[in-house]
Order: sequence, then structure tokens, then C-alpha cells
Amino acid sequence: MIKIGIIGAAGYSGIELIKLLLKHPNVNIEKLFGNTNAGKNINEIHPQIKSIFSKYIEVFDEKKLKGLDCVFVALPSGQSYDFIKIALEHKIKIIDIGGDFRLRNVNEYKKYYHHDHKYPELLSTAIYGLPEWNEENIKNADLICNPGCYPTSVLLALLPVLKNNLINVNYIFINSYSGTSGAGKSLTQNMLFTEVNENIRAYKLGTHQHIPEIRQYAKEFADQEIKFTFIPHLLPVSRGIYTTIHTKIKQGIHFEHINEAFMNNYAKSKFIRLCVDEIPEMKNVLHTNFCDIGYRLIDDNLVIISTIDNLVKGAAGQAVQNMNLLFNFSKESGLL
Amino acid sequence: MIKIGIIGAAGYSGIELIKLLLKHPNVNIEKLFGNTNAGKNINEIHPQIKSIFSKYIEVFDEKKLKGLDCVFVALPSGQSYDFIKIALEHKIKIIDIGGDFRLRNVNEYKKYYHHDHKYPELLSTAIYGLPEWNEENIKNADLICNPGCYPTSVLLALLPVLKNNLINVNYIFINSYSGTSGAGKSLTQNMLFTEVNENIRAYKLGTHQHIPEIRQYAKEFADQEIKFTFIPHLLPVSRGIYTTIHTKIKQGIHFEHINEAFMNNYAKSKFIRLCVDEIPEMKNVLHTNFCDIGYRLIDDNLVIISTIDNLVKGAAGQAVQNMNLLFNFSKESGLL
Amino acid sequence: MIKIGIIGAAGYSGIELIKLLLKHPNVNIEKLFGNTNAGKNINEIHPQIKSIFSKYIEVFDEKKLKGLDCVFVALPSGQSYDFIKIALEHKIKIIDIGGDFRLRNVNEYKKYYHHDHKYPELLSTAIYGLPEWNEENIKNADLICNPGCYPTSVLLALLPVLKNNLINVNYIFINSYSGTSGAGKSLTQNMLFTEVNENIRAYKLGTHQHIPEIRQYAKEFADQEIKFTFIPHLLPVSRGIYTTIHTKIKQGIHFEHINEAFMNNYAKSKFIRLCVDEIPEMKNVLHTNFCDIGYRLIDDNLVIISTIDNLVKGAAGQAVQNMNLLFNFSKESGLL
Amino acid sequence: MIKIGIIGAAGYSGIELIKLLLKHPNVNIEKLFGNTNAGKNINEIHPQIKSIFSKYIEVFDEKKLKGLDCVFVALPSGQSYDFIKIALEHKIKIIDIGGDFRLRNVNEYKKYYHHDHKYPELLSTAIYGLPEWNEENIKNADLICNPGCYPTSVLLALLPVLKNNLINVNYIFINSYSGTSGAGKSLTQNMLFTEVNENIRAYKLGTHQHIPEIRQYAKEFADQEIKFTFIPHLLPVSRGIYTTIHTKIKQGIHFEHINEAFMNNYAKSKFIRLCVDEIPEMKNVLHTNFCDIGYRLIDDNLVIISTIDNLVKGAAGQAVQNMNLLFNFSKESGLL
Repeated sequence: MIKIGIIGAAGYSGIELIKLLLKHPNVNIEKLFGNTNAGKNINEIHPQIKSIFSKYIEVFDEKKLKGLDCVFVALPSGQSYDFIKIALEHKIKIIDIGGDFRLRNVNEYKKYYHHDHKYPELLSTAIYGLPEWNEENIKNADLICNPGCYPTSVLLALLPVLKNNLINVNYIFINSYSGTSGAGKSLTQNMLFTEVNENIRAYKLGTHQHIPEIRQYAKEFADQEIKFTFIPHLLPVSRGIYTTIHTKIKQGIHFEHINEAFMNNYAKSKFIRLCVDEIPEMKNVLHTNFCDIGYRLIDDNLVIISTIDNLVKGAAGQAVQNMNLLFNFSKESGLL
Repeated sequence: MIKIGIIGAAGYSGIELIKLLLKHPNVNIEKLFGNTNAGKNINEIHPQIKSIFSKYIEVFDEKKLKGLDCVFVALPSGQSYDFIKIALEHKIKIIDIGGDFRLRNVNEYKKYYHHDHKYPELLSTAIYGLPEWNEENIKNADLICNPGCYPTSVLLALLPVLKNNLINVNYIFINSYSGTSGAGKSLTQNMLFTEVNENIRAYKLGTHQHIPEIRQYAKEFADQEIKFTFIPHLLPVSRGIYTTIHTKIKQGIHFEHINEAFMNNYAKSKFIRLCVDEIPEMKNVLHTNFCDIGYRLIDDNLVIISTIDNLVKGAAGQAVQNMNLLFNFSKESGLL
Repeated sequence: MIKIGIIGAAGYSGIELIKLLLKHPNVNIEKLFGNTNAGKNINEIHPQIKSIFSKYIEVFDEKKLKGLDCVFVALPSGQSYDFIKIALEHKIKIIDIGGDFRLRNVNEYKKYYHHDHKYPELLSTAIYGLPEWNEENIKNADLICNPGCYPTSVLLALLPVLKNNLINVNYIFINSYSGTSGAGKSLTQNMLFTEVNENIRAYKLGTHQHIPEIRQYAKEFADQEIKFTFIPHLLPVSRGIYTTIHTKIKQGIHFEHINEAFMNNYAKSKFIRLCVDEIPEMKNVLHTNFCDIGYRLIDDNLVIISTIDNLVKGAAGQAVQNMNLLFNFSKESGLL
Repeated sequence: MIKIGIIGAAGYSGIELIKLLLKHPNVNIEKLFGNTNAGKNINEIHPQIKSIFSKYIEVFDEKKLKGLDCVFVALPSGQSYDFIKIALEHKIKIIDIGGDFRLRNVNEYKKYYHHDHKYPELLSTAIYGLPEWNEENIKNADLICNPGCYPTSVLLALLPVLKNNLINVNYIFINSYSGTSGAGKSLTQNMLFTEVNENIRAYKLGTHQHIPEIRQYAKEFADQEIKFTFIPHLLPVSRGIYTTIHTKIKQGIHFEHINEAFMNNYAKSKFIRLCVDEIPEMKNVLHTNFCDIGYRLIDDNLVIISTIDNLVKGAAGQAVQNMNLLFNFSKESGLL
């Protein structure tokens, strides 16, 4: 049994993580750290786990890291720097669900996250936790940066055809729709029920912080410099991400090439389900770690659709998947 | 054409009021007053009325009341006192959609609204704007206090059987369910989409500020001292109120007595629709000024169900209905 | 490992049952029976379990019962008679999630379910599967009739105060609200999304088939002949039941009596969570086998609120809870 | 006052049409025709109009056309042929909300609507009722085919940049999301609340019947042969369409060209609202006849977003807008 700490457990990803870890046979949740909610029992904040789990949230203190094997970080952007630096010094494995270490180019933090990165020297040590494409590196990582929810759905859909050179990399058009839990619990008027219900709206056109993340890892995993437009939308659902991507295939490419690319790349990936005859539906992946992917060729337009639960495969579930690799547990442990 | 002012137009009741007044043949919206949003055009705050209506919100100043015939007040509780006092001094008719003048007993403001009433001497001048039960007084009022959304649905359902002495006044059990717009735009975590969606919860058990309002007007309009429990619930819908009331009929009472009580009391009430064969559904009254009422006798239990749109019959629509009486316009003007 | 069969797995309770059983350490799902969907793989009907579970639905045939230890029945009302009779003859333990064996009085099937019971002689053998109140009988049952979703939420809320003689049994007023999955997959216009969304409606006033079930088991478990009104409502949510009950306490009863009744009766009931300080919310029990119960005394009115997931504690979860007792597995196995 | 008939008033577009016509100063609804619902009062089918409007639905009979000036047709595809032929012979103006006369190429009915067109000779007489682009023809039409809901949102967004030659017509990628009322009241399992709620799904990839309609009218109104992919999605909302279009601008084109194209084309179009600074939100157009359009240039990608209420601008509202032109009423009559 390894000993787990979580910092930032009060949010939606945090509680999802706790629920998953409670069903995992190889871990104990030892410590919960937090500021705003320090002193409260986590089950007051998330009453759904009452009489299942009870633990008080503590203010972080370096000494409290002692004995922990792995810490999950679920903090808002820009707030994890010092904590992660200290934990690394203590040789504790870190899985960061937030976005503070995903980008290699330090300037992009300024541009997309609107603050300077505090420890740029650590960026090169961070391993991108997309298990289907980075398994070997994850196994040996000290600091895993868990992918963003949108990039997870986009990269899993695009990488097979990118890697196999099947599409024109200059024509990629991505529409993603997310449930509201992706925005966390921050209080803004446009996240009130009355504003979101019976509505849909696009947001952050061309400026979303997940754009450089998608670009960078398309390059790292498929060695392609892609040009794309990414338009996120807010849906009136609590959870889930649905992504519809339009691309143009290269000349000479047929459906079989595409089909093979997906089949081969994901032959051993338990959590990727290819929808050959059906069209993915968001409800089929909710509360699971699956990513369902469908693809359809319409003339020379290849439409790829993927869907995940933003809180599971897009956050806490993928974090556990990474932990399983890191500690050599069974790959699906706690996730089926 | 009368000249209208509105203070507090930025909220959900405010925009509903504007939309209704824009379709009304006898009024002009002359002035919008506000603090937080002063300087903004109302159509920036409510883009749904763009290219229909354009007017800037102004900071209130006594001089700006000049020329106005009627002012609607849509302010949070406790914030309307000074404004209303000044407007009354200027002989302007006032329709207060808020709750600051509904209760006669000054102590109940302290108990249920948690602040002291600033001008208790004005309470006796306020006329309760429930047109189906108070038409003559409304016509001659200077200050109309528009009923609360819950009390509207409860009183319209109960008054006919109370007034006709058909039920035991000691056994009245009221469950009401409201959409989220009733809570306005205030930012609290439990009004976020993720918290409200796929959920229902009761709240303010035995402490809701509409309890004394229901009690008082049951006394005024039906001359009955009723004992009741009122349990409000929050529903995952944007608008609408649905109320299910359980009562016990008195001995010797039959369904025909009940049916007659409703039929007779509401024979001339255009906005009350009695559902004799069907059960009321909330969707049938949304975006209308109707209150649908159904009643069913099960042994000696009389179940009465009523439903309204909280923003129309429960707020802005009823306010316009009151204005029509006050200025001797056609009763349904702007409301059908 | 015991061998499980399920008849009627294609419905919403069926898939919930499969998902629960797949996480249960002591069972194997051996056989799926059905008519409409015979020949289909269950994971085509419920794509959310693709790559987790694969099994074809077979037309039922007596010989196929061989080797099974327990069969779950999830059929629409009136369709389980022959199957259950045959399975009993084969000495197979039966857990019937449907309503065909819950009522003792054969006339009530005619009145509330609108058909004659085919094997009235079997009614006396059926054991009501409400584990918190009937544990010993369940352990030795051959045929367990799993409680209805509404009766589960109502009885768990009422029985402690009934059994301890704390309330006046002639004044019980029950409002329940259910998500749409309770209505199953049958095609009726009023279950279309457009009809249910942004709506709430009461239905089956005084005629719901769960009324005699509540009455009968209040008598069996608390020895009280209760008089009550039960009004079910349809909510715009997929799952969950919320029940608000109004009662009158007897003279001389104080809050401590009520609190003790709940505390004592449920001291050992893992799946009952008492909300002393908070008000139950439906979202806290969704996807769990918990029933959250709150109670508040307002003058001499006792309001009791309970909430469950209709598909888990109200159907499949409670069925597994019963199976755990029947086969002497750990009580919470597969349910936490 | 002109005399109106409606055939097919029982559907969602039908009731929306009735509600709009009731507020229109120049029309009387004289006749309602239907089959399934013949003999019923329309207000039994749509209780929201009870005590506003009462009229019985009659089985159609040629003689009953006498005296009518205009008939609205709101029938499922393939069911309007005979009715429209007869009405035309009687010199009655027809506004067909359905899709039976929108396509010029008779083969496309077979391919996309799966039946043969019964009167291909009439196709050339049908005038496409998109008032912003076809006003003069509409004024003189005998048979107006009202645009489909998706094509309305797509064409209004694309035509200005197509007509002004601003985009590469070979790279147009359209994602549209629709509320459920677009699917009407037909009973299919995948339209049940439980299936649609908390879900999103794409459907009819590359095969939707609105594809040839978009292609044809891009040609007619902008003289461009466009290549595009159109992916419709079903949203968990009752009404509304939201369309996000990705395109590539031609070399040398700047944002000002695009902005001017929209500004100039829609300068006199009351029902088009251009969102220069904001991003369109679906809730702003619900229950209105507006189409809100936003556009953003991201490198050489032009993203255009449009949103309408599928039942108003996408059906009944646009039909009234056409009627206003046809009978020379004020253009916005009944629509603001």
C-alpha cells in the first residue's frame, strides 16, 4: 500500500480523485492539504462520501510530507509552484492535475495563463501523463503533468492520423463542448444555473490555454507541426467533453488507412474504445475512464469525434492511470 | 401614454418587466435607475433585447423623478426604503416587486428578513397587489407591494377553500418548488450550474420569509388564522413555481363544494385557469401570466396544486396586472 | 463465486444491476434472458459497458436455469409470473426488482396494477427486501420482492417514528419527486425530452401502485395502520428520488424522541445516513446505495426528508444488498 | 384582416405559429386541419393556450379552403404534396414550413428524404423564404418554402462572406447543435428524456437532408459552389440552434472586409444582430425571431457563429416574416 497525499481536494477533480482512490486496492489516502478549507473534514465539503471516508484538511507544512509516496496536485493555475518544488526535493512522486507544468515554452505561460512561471528550470523534468502515448516515460517520471481535459480528448483523436501522416496538417478544425464542472467552483455570474441552463456558448476563441498544449504534444508524439483552430463551448451538462474535429485527408488515403491507424495505435489501450459503426455519445463515457472515438470519411473530409468524462479521463481517472504506471500497479486498477 | 421608471432593472425580474412593458400599448419606459450598473445600457446587461430597446441606467437622483407617473421597484430586500419614501413624497405611484412593504407587523421584518424596517409608519399605506383578491384597493393605491412568488402560488390556491370554510385550517401542508431565477443573480456556490443540475433540495425549513406573508394575507382575504408548514425546494429549471398543498376538508364537505368555490371565486379572473380534468404542469404557464390550479379530493384529503411562472405572475407580470388596475387600462393589456 | 442470471437486463435497472455485479467479488453473471432483445449483446444496448462486459441475451428456456444460484428479475409489471414460478420450482433464489409479488392482498393487483395476479398462492412466500427492517427474513428467503423506489424512500423515512409511536398516524402527507429513469424506456409522448425538460408535474394522484405497498409495510414493520396521501411528481432529472413528508407529532413528543428513534433504528445501517444539521440533497446519493434522511420539527409538525438514487437503493443496489444477505456475503460488498 | 388556415398545428412549430399569429394585428386564424388530432380542440393538445384560443381541428376537405387567404403547412416530410397542390389550385397563398418543396433537384428528395417527389413540376414555382436574401421574390410568391432550421442558421452566417468572395469555398466546416424540439413529437427511444439529458451526440454524419438545401441556396444567393462538411448534434435543451463554422479566408482579406460584408448585407435586416465584441449565446435569441451572428478571425481562419430559436426564426417566426412580406404588412409585425 502506498501512501497518498492530495493538495486541493475540495474541488470537483479532487473529490473525483478521492472516490477513485478509495476503490483502489493499493493505496491509502494519508493526507489532505488545503488553505481555504483547512480544518474542515473533506466529507463536509463533499457530503456524498459521508460514512465512506473521513479526513480533515490540513494547512500544508513541509514536515507533513514525510512518509508520503505520491502527491496529487489539484490546484488552480499558478498556485502549485512552491508546493511542487518542495515535494520534488523530498523525492516524492508528483502527479499534477493542474496546468502549471505542461508547456515547455516558458513564454506561453505568460501569454495563455497570464502569469510568469516561477521555476522554468523544472519544466524539462515534467512528463506529460497521456498514458496511451507516453507510457515508458511516465513509468520513470518524478513529476507527471496530467493532460488538460480538452487536450486529452483532442490528442487521443488526432494523434493516430497525425502520426501516420494521413491528414493535411494545415487544415484541422476543432470544436469542443464541455460540461460545467470543468470550470470548477469559482463564482462567476456566467456559471450560475440560470445563465448556463438552456444555453450554449463558445468562449475564449483562439485564446484558450489548451491551444499551446495541443500544438506542443502533436509535435512531441506525432512529430507534426499542426495548424488548427480550437473553439471550446460550454454545455448545459455537469460533466463530459465532446469533441468534433474536421480534417482533410491527404491524397491517396482511404478509409482503411484511417481505420488501421486507429486500430493499431489503440490495440492495447483498454481505455480507448473505437466506435466503428456507431457515433460516440457523451453519456456512454460519463463516470468512466474511457475515451470513445469515432471517425467518418465524407468525401475527402475526415470527421473524428471523441468524448470523455472531463473529471475522470480528463482529470482524476487519467491521474490514477498514471499512478498505476508509476508504481507498477495493474494498468486498470481502480478504474473499471 | 404614462411614463414609467424602473429601479433595479438589471435583475431577472427587471428584464422580464421591461419585455412586458415594451409590448404594452399605454406606457413608455422613461428612466432606469441603478447603482452597480449605472452607466451601462440595459441591453448590454440583457443582450436579448438588443435592437429592441436601448436605455442607459442612471444613478438615482430625486430630480429625475419629475414627470414620471409610475415607478417599479425591483431591489433586493432592505434596499428600497429611501427610494420609496422619496417617490411617495413626489406623488408617484409605486409598484414594489420586492418584499420591503408586504408585512404589516414590523417585528417580522427583523425575524424573517434580518433587518429593521426603516419606515414602519408607511406599512399601513401599502396595498397588497394580488389582483384576484384585492382589486378595489389596488385601483386606489399609492404604494402597491407586489406579492412574493411563493405566496402568489399558495394564496391563489388556498384562498377559495379558506374563504368558503371548506378545510380544517390547522392542517395545511405546503410543498413548493422553484426554478433558480427566483434566487436572482447573487453569487453563491450552491447556485452554480454544477450544484443545481441533476439535484433537488429543500431549504429554509420553517424560516422562509414568505411564511408570514402567506399567514397574514390568508387572514386578510379569507379571515382565517391558518396553521401550516411551508417547505420550499430548489428545482433544476430556470423558471417556474409548482406548489402542492395537502389539506383536510371539514366534515360534510363534498367535491362539489370545492369545485364551486374555485369556479365562483375565479369566474372573472382571466389569469386563473382551473384544471378540472388534468393535473397542472409547470411548462403550461411558463412565459405567461397564468396561474393554473388543480384540485383533487382523495378521501378527506384535498390536494390543491398550483403553478405559475415566478418571473411573470410571480413578479413582473403581476406587477403589470397591478399597473393596469391602477391606471384603469384594460385588465389584460400587455399580458396575453 | 455464485452464478447469476438476469431476466430483463435491457432496462435502466438492468444495466445498473450489471454494473454493480461486475464490481462484486463473489458473483459471476452467467445468463441474460430477454425477449425483445434476445440475440443482442447487452453491450450493444448499453454501450457504456463495452470492453468491460460482453454477453448475449437469450430467450428464456427452463433448461438454461441449470447451475444458476440466483436470478434477478427486472421485468415490467405482470410479466414475471411464469418465470418466477418455474425458477422457484428449480430451487433457484429469486430477487424480483419488479412489483409482481410485493402486495399480500390479491385484490390490490387488480386495483392498482390493472391485472389479475396469476399465482396468488405464491404471495405468502415472498419476502419484502428492505434490509434495514427485514434482515432475518431476507436471509432465509427463496423469493425476495425488492421494494419499489418510492416505498423505499418513504418507508425508510417513516418507519422509525411510526414504530416508536411518535406521530399521529392519521396525518401523513407525502410528496415524492422522481427522475425519469423510474419510468423506464417505454415510449410515451410525455416522456420525451421536450415534454419533461423545464417542467415538473404531479401524476397518478391517489392511484399510484406504490400506495398499497407503503400502507402494507407500515403495518408489517411498525404495526401501524396509517392514513396518508401520496403525491408523486416527475422531475427533469435522469435519476434520483426526493421525498418530503409532513406529519404531526403526538402530544408530549420532543425532538430528542425523534432523533433517538432515527439514531437507534439506524445505528447499524451502513446505507442510511442521518442529516442532523444539514438538509438532504439528491445529488449526494446519486450513483450510491445510500438513503439520506433529515428531519426537522416545526412547532408540532415533523417534516422528514429522504432521498435515494432510484436505480441503486431504489432498485439494483438494494437488490444486491438483499443478495449479500441471502448468500451471507459481506453486507456492503459491491456497494461502496 | 386576412384569414389563415394551418395544417399540422399539433406539432411544436404549429403551436409556436399559433402563438405568434395570435399577437399579429392583421390576421385571423380561421381553420385548423389535421388527421391524427381531428376532432380535438387545439388547446387540449397545447394547454398553454387555454383561455387564449379555442378552435377544433378538422379533417381537411377541399371545400373548407373557401375564404382562406393563406395556409401554413407544418407537416412531416412527404405528407404535404396533395394538400399543397389543391390549395394552389384554389389560388391560396401557401407557406410551407416543412421540407417538401425546398430542393430544386428532384433526385435529392429520393436521396435525402427517402421518397419520390409527387409533383416535381411544382418545384420551380416554390420560392425560398429567407427574407434577408430573397425579399422581392417572396413578395410575389404563391408557394413559399420556409427554410429548414439548420440552413437558416448556416446560410445567414455564410452568405455575406460567400457573396463577397472572402473565403475559400472548398474549406467550410460546419458544426450545428440543436435542441430537441427540432425532432418534433415522434416517439423514438433516443428522444426520451433519460437518453438526451446529460448527453450530446452527433447524428446523420454527411447524410442530413439539410445538406443539399445549404448547397443549393449558397449557389442561388451567392453564386458559389461550396464544398462543406455539416455535422448536426443533439443538445440537451428544448429549443435553439447554435452553429459554429470554420472557414479559410482568401489571401489579401482582412477583418475589415469581413466586418463590412456583414454590416452592409444586414444593415436593413432588423432580425439579424451582429455581435462584434461579444460571442453569441443561444439564450439571447430564444423565444425571438433574431439571428445573432458573431465572427472572429484567428490567423487566416474565419470562425463564424450564429444562433437562432429553431421554432421561431428557424420555423414559425420566419414563416410569419414571410407572410408579412407576402401581404405587405409591416415587416416586423407580430415578431417583436
